[in-house]
This record gives sequence, C-alpha cells and structure tokens, in this order.
Amino acid sequence: MVFQTRFATIEGNDLYIDGCKATDLAKQYGTPLYVMSESHIRHQMNELKTKFMDKYEGSLPLFASKSFSCLAIYKLASEYGIGIDCVSAGEISIALKAGFDPDKIYFHGNNKLPSEIEYALSHGVTHFVIDNFYEIELCEKIAGELGKTVKATVRVVPGIKAGGHNYIMTGHKDTKFGFSSHYGIYLKAIGQILESKNIEYEGLHAHIGSQVFDLYAYISSITKFMGFVDEIYNTFGVVTKKVNAGGGYGIAYTKDDEPLDFEVITSEIMKVVYDHYDEKGWNRPSVMIEPGRYVVGNAGITLYTVGVIKEIPDVRTYVSVDGGMADNIRTALYDADYDGIVANKAGETKTKKVRVAGKCCESADVIVKDINVTANIMPGDIFAVYTTGAYCYTMSSNYNQLPKPAVVFAHEGKSKTVIRRQTFDDLIVYDVVEDYHD
Amino acid sequence: MVFQTRFATIEGNDLYIDGCKATDLAKQYGTPLYVMSESHIRHQMNELKTKFMDKYEGSLPLFASKSFSCLAIYKLASEYGIGIDCVSAGEISIALKAGFDPDKIYFHGNNKLPSEIEYALSHGVTHFVIDNFYEIELCEKIAGELGKTVKATVRVVPGIKAGGHNYIMTGHKDTKFGFSSHYGIYLKAIGQILESKNIEYEGLHAHIGSQVFDLYAYISSITKFMGFVDEIYNTFGVVTKKVNAGGGYGIAYTKDDEPLDFEVITSEIMKVVYDHYDEKGWNRPSVMIEPGRYVVGNAGITLYTVGVIKEIPDVRTYVSVDGGMADNIRTALYDADYDGIVANKAGETKTKKVRVAGKCCESADVIVKDINVTANIMPGDIFAVYTTGAYCYTMSSNYNQLPKPAVVFAHEGKSKTVIRRQTFDDLIVYDVVEDYHD
Repeated sequence: MVFQTRFATIEGNDLYIDGCKATDLAKQYGTPLYVMSESHIRHQMNELKTKFMDKYEGSLPLFASKSFSCLAIYKLASEYGIGIDCVSAGEISIALKAGFDPDKIYFHGNNKLPSEIEYALSHGVTHFVIDNFYEIELCEKIAGELGKTVKATVRVVPGIKAGGHNYIMTGHKDTKFGFSSHYGIYLKAIGQILESKNIEYEGLHAHIGSQVFDLYAYISSITKFMGFVDEIYNTFGVVTKKVNAGGGYGIAYTKDDEPLDFEVITSEIMKVVYDHYDEKGWNRPSVMIEPGRYVVGNAGITLYTVGVIKEIPDVRTYVSVDGGMADNIRTALYDADYDGIVANKAGETKTKKVRVAGKCCESADVIVKDINVTANIMPGDIFAVYTTGAYCYTMSSNYNQLPKPAVVFAHEGKSKTVIRRQTFDDLIVYDVVEDYHD
Repeated sequence: MVFQTRFATIEGNDLYIDGCKATDLAKQYGTPLYVMSESHIRHQMNELKTKFMDKYEGSLPLFASKSFSCLAIYKLASEYGIGIDCVSAGEISIALKAGFDPDKIYFHGNNKLPSEIEYALSHGVTHFVIDNFYEIELCEKIAGELGKTVKATVRVVPGIKAGGHNYIMTGHKDTKFGFSSHYGIYLKAIGQILESKNIEYEGLHAHIGSQVFDLYAYISSITKFMGFVDEIYNTFGVVTKKVNAGGGYGIAYTKDDEPLDFEVITSEIMKVVYDHYDEKGWNRPSVMIEPGRYVVGNAGITLYTVGVIKEIPDVRTYVSVDGGMADNIRTALYDADYDGIVANKAGETKTKKVRVAGKCCESADVIVKDINVTANIMPGDIFAVYTTGAYCYTMSSNYNQLPKPAVVFAHEGKSKTVIRRQTFDDLIVYDVVEDYHD
C-alpha cells in the first residue's frame, strides 16, 4: 500500500505504526491521537539530503514547515542539514527555539508584517522570498534601520496552475501570491531590488500548486522560468544565481493517487536548469525545492476511538469517532479523500461501506467520506486514518471546545510525546477577567 | 444597515463599535482583533428573555454556545436567566467555571463520549439531547453507576432541508444526527427510554439547519413534530412535555440576506404547538429554542491592519490583511459572504472593488471575496469585517503559527479584554521534550 507510511504494517489482526502496536498507543496516550512515524520522516528527509542536496552543488531542499510545525520537526530537519521554509514570524520563532540555523530559513508570505520583517532580520533570517512591491519598500526601510541586508528570491507567478492530476497552462493569474510575469511587472520589481541599498537580488521563486501529480507541469514551469532568467540577464546584465523551484509534490492519500517519484521530479527540473545555464556558459545556480506534505504527509496516522454506529435505512451507515473537523478539517475544507482501517481488526475483510464522521455538532464534520471497513466494526474499536501528517495538526482548532490531541512520534517500536494533549483547563487559559475602561 | 451590529455607527470618517472608535481599539489592543459589542449581545439575549422566556410559561431559550464559547459569554447568558446548549464536556466545563446553572445546560452531540457523559452527570448536567441508541445504552449504564437520572429530549430527524449552504444543512435524511422518523426508529428509541431505569423521557428535539431564512421550513418542521407527539401518545400513552424547536435563525452577513424577525419565528412555532396541545386537551409543554449565531453573530467585528495592495492587471485587486483563515475560516469553508469597511475612512465613497485576502500561505485564504471600498485604501488602514461574532473565534486555529487574536468586548464607549492575544511563546506551550520509551 503506497497510501500510508511505509512504516505502517499489519501483523495478524493489528496495525503497527513504526513498530508500535496502534492499540497500545491508543491505550497509553488516549485518543484522538496523532501518531507520526519518525522513521518515515527520517526516510523522506534523507531522500531530500541524498537525492538532492548531496547530488547538486549549492542546492538546498527546504522543508515547507506550514505542513507540520513544532519543535521536534525542526530539530529533525536540522539533523539532516536541510533548510526550511517559514511563512510567519511565529514559525521562525519556533524553528529558532529548536536551534535551527537561521541561514537555512527562507521566509515566505504574501503579506509579511513590518513586525515580522523586523523579527526575522533581528534574528539572523535574511533569506526572503519577496512577494510584492510593498514588501520591497518595507525590507529596504527596515533592513536599513537594522543595518542588515535582505537576500531576495523573487516570487514570480508561473502562469501555470497545477494540483490534483491536471494543470492549466494559462491558469493561476488570479492569485494573491507573487509578481505577475505580464506587463514587465516582475522585471520592474527586480529593477527596484537591484537599485535598492539593503536588498540583494539572488534569484527567482516558482510555485505551481499543491498535490501535483503532473511531471510536465514542473517541466513547463521551470522552462518558463529559464525564459525569465534570460529576460533578467538581457534587461539588467545580471545572472540569476538562485532558482527556487517550489514544492507541491503530490502524495498518495488513497490508492487512486499516483505520486511522482522524487528523483524523477528533481532530476527533470535540474536537467532543464543546468542545460540552460551550461548552454549560456553561466555558473550553475543554487537550486531550492520546497516539499512539505511530501516529507510528513504519509508519516501521520490519526487514531480515533469508534463510538456511535448509525445505520440510516436507504441512506448509509455513519461511524462516529471521538475527534473530527477540529483535528482534521481537510475533508470539510478541500473535499479531501482519506483511507483508513480498524486498527484492532486490521486483518479482517472489508465488506461494509461506511462514512466516518466526527463528533462536532456540524454536518460538514466528516473525516472519511466513503470507506470499506470490517463488518465487525463496533464501539470501542480503534479507527486509524492514514496520511494525516500534513495540514492536520497545524490547521487544528478547538471547535466545540474539543481539546487538541497529543502528537506522538513512533520509532522502531518505541514512542514519545512531542506535543501533549490539551486539558479542559487549557481551554480557558487565555480567558481574562477585566473591568471596563476607557 | 442590518448586516452589522446595531451598535456599529459611522461618525465622520470613523467607524465606532458600541461607542468605541475602531482605530482606537486597534491601537490599544493590536490587530487582528475580534471586537464584540456587549450591547448587541445584551440586546439579543434580552429578546430571548422578554420575547420568549417571559412570554411562554415553562419555556427556555438556549444559547447555542458552540457559536461563541468563553467564560465571558456564559456569564452574560447567566445574567439573563436563559439556558445554553453545550456540545461537549469541554464547553460544559467552561460554562460551569463561569458559574452557569447546570440545570439550564442542555447537552448535545452525535457522539457523546462515555467520559463526557460521566463528566456531565457528575457535574449536575442531566438534560441530554439524546441522539442515538448507543447513547441510550451508555446513559442507562453510566447514570446507573452514578445514581443519576438523565432527562431526555430525543433528537428526531425532521426530514426537512433548510439552510443557505450544503454544508450546513442538518434537516435531511443523510445526516449523522438524530433518530430517523422512518421505519418506526424514533419510536423504538422512545420505547427503550421509557423502559429504562435511569433515563426519563421528557420530549423531542428538532433542528432543520443553519442560516435559515424560510419561515415555512420552521412551521413545516414543528407541524411534523406535532405528528410525532401524537404518534408517541398513541403508541405509549405518554404526553410529550418538552418540545425543543432547535435554532438556525439566519442573520444578515450582507445586504442580500433578509433575516426573519425573532418574534415572528417564535410566535409561529408557539402557535402550532399550543394549538395542537390545546386541541388535544393536554397541558401545554415546555418549549425550547436554540439560537446561537442569532445572539452573537452580528455583535462581532474583526479589525485587521491593511498590508499589501496588489493590482493584478486584467484580473482583480487583492488587499491583504494581517489575519486570515486562521481567525476566520468561514469564507474558505462555507464560501461565506461578508461585508466590511475601511474603519478610518468609513465616510468615503466606495468605488474600488477588491478581494480581501489573509496572510496565510494558501490560495483558499480569502476573507471577503468581493467588496467595494474607498479608492483611497492604503497600507496601515484598519479594515473592519462585519458579522464575525459567530463561528470565527470558536473555529480559529494557529495555522501558519499565527497567534490567535484577542477578543475584546466594547460597551457604551468602554472596552475590556475577555480573551487575551496569544504570544509566540504560547505557540509551543504544549511541545514537550521526551525520550523514547517502550
């Protein structure tokens, strides 16, 4: 099965996650529980290191940490020597608290706040993916005040919209991100940066979408960007020395998803870039990629306890679990598909079609829209939802005042908490009692 | 303007919220900021009290607190003597900490956990809206162990579809909530309750959806329920003494929404119920209603600071603010519409059409899809989004590691914090450093 962590195995009637019996984890830590296979994360980070970073001189893979952000993950990334992309000063603050090298942090965002720019620069984060003219103004001013230099990769809209299985060549113009490549807009931005005192032009940034399964979309995008590189050279006589090719590498949530091979994507991208630079006789650039979901998505499995099983005649069967859209909003938000299994009846034939719903008081609160499970499913069973490592914990809420689940790392038969479960008392920790004042 | 709190006013070029100048609040508390007009909340709660509770003997309006849940709101509800509906032990725990009378709490949920049932009963919450057969089993067992009696209103699916959006319709057949009225299913449930030792049958519960603007849907539903009441009487010889007519009263988010009048909805419902009971010669029942959004929705205004303004030729203008889907996911999740205004240029003519986006690294991160604003909008302006009092704070996340905004109550020119803003340090308060263990 490719749509789950390679470290999830079934032995007899039991699901094991990275050597730990799922039901033991549920008993020990309670449910709902986010379990992450550390072996899977290490495997993926090692791919980034050995199949990209070590292979291409000056390259740096950046883990897109908005997919899963906490002290533990930044520490792991640090261990592999890879970089990260951060989308807020909040993310930067956590990475730095984990001891992450600020020089390997790339700061993203369509609306970096003045306070965030100041925070980043004051803490040694100087690599900015510059998104817009206002940011150029702010960076020039704030970097000047702090006596720092912003190293800029400029985000240009690729004019390619990809995601799911297809892409649209002329799509993606209607986006809040980046500089348009039309009407000379991005060239104007680079001109301003080249004239600025406190921002250094280093390169370009391309991002075509999320959950991309189409190799040709990546090739088209990077080929287009080589045209931008030429245009910049022809206009300013400047060779672009960094190319950030973005991320969005699709992973398998269900057996219908067919992910591209990491080495295929990256080698195709590198071939286009290196061929182009070699042909021009330029020094080869540093190349960045930004996978997030690819690193952590399949590492995660959420364990729930099964509660109510409701058969609605002529309609369907609802299996309700003890979590829901508060811990995984992706089904409601993106109409996402998931796969899963009854962890303590994992060997049984799956003959019963059900919908797995959460416990939130809301119709949208569905986790798995349609799935076959053992006909023997019953209250108290542990239901495991695969592929919840990305964008579940980071998007979690306290909707319905459900305390957030713990996050546990499993690794070769052992486990540890990396984020503890919230308690009822945690739900009012920010509530204050104040008197009215003017 | 009906699509904002009645306590939002424009004086000269400034927006005032319940007597407080919006820009002063932004300066004092920072942005993004949830501002709630206490006068508006009081006005709405007073409607529930005077136009429903005081008017109909034995009736109780229940504030559906999943719409906005914190110590301060439970204290206010308590002051008016109204009840609340809670959808989890977490919500109950907060209400009790606010000193709320447990006898006025109604416990909802499609999958109440055994631990939650125990928590509720141990803390004096005995009014349960019973959703399913498994819950009957659990209640019978746990109440027995604790020596308590559950007072049951039984949720029956009205089979009526109402509400503005697919995701927020709960009245149809394909729902995880309640007992079907087909195949005698709800009668079987009531039969089981009547035979149980520790559950007392009190009545029925109907909920047809959210954001309902159709009076006829309410009348149809309650009329149908009078049929259920008769069927119960004919089957068991029992007169249903409580009727919970649910909530879902639509409010105006934009000028296109035309909310029903509270007194019109409730008097139509009461007419159907009382006429039916009078005709049968039965004692009139206690009637409950469950408005949530109606109480707090229009009370809330979110204040943001304007950052990047990006004109994309041939496409549109994006105005990015310093919050986003982390503090208001409703636009992304429900395709919700909002209205708003530049709070410090509130008197200016609105001639510029823009899209208001957030700062999250995600294309879905839009707050207001299309809105006319002053052509003079610029970075540093304060943008106010109306009608954010319901389902914004309670659904908020730390996505992109954005700290949650503060919630401030404004009241007749004065203000106070009721929920403080998170800091960067708060973002890792649950992160733990542990060694692996078996």
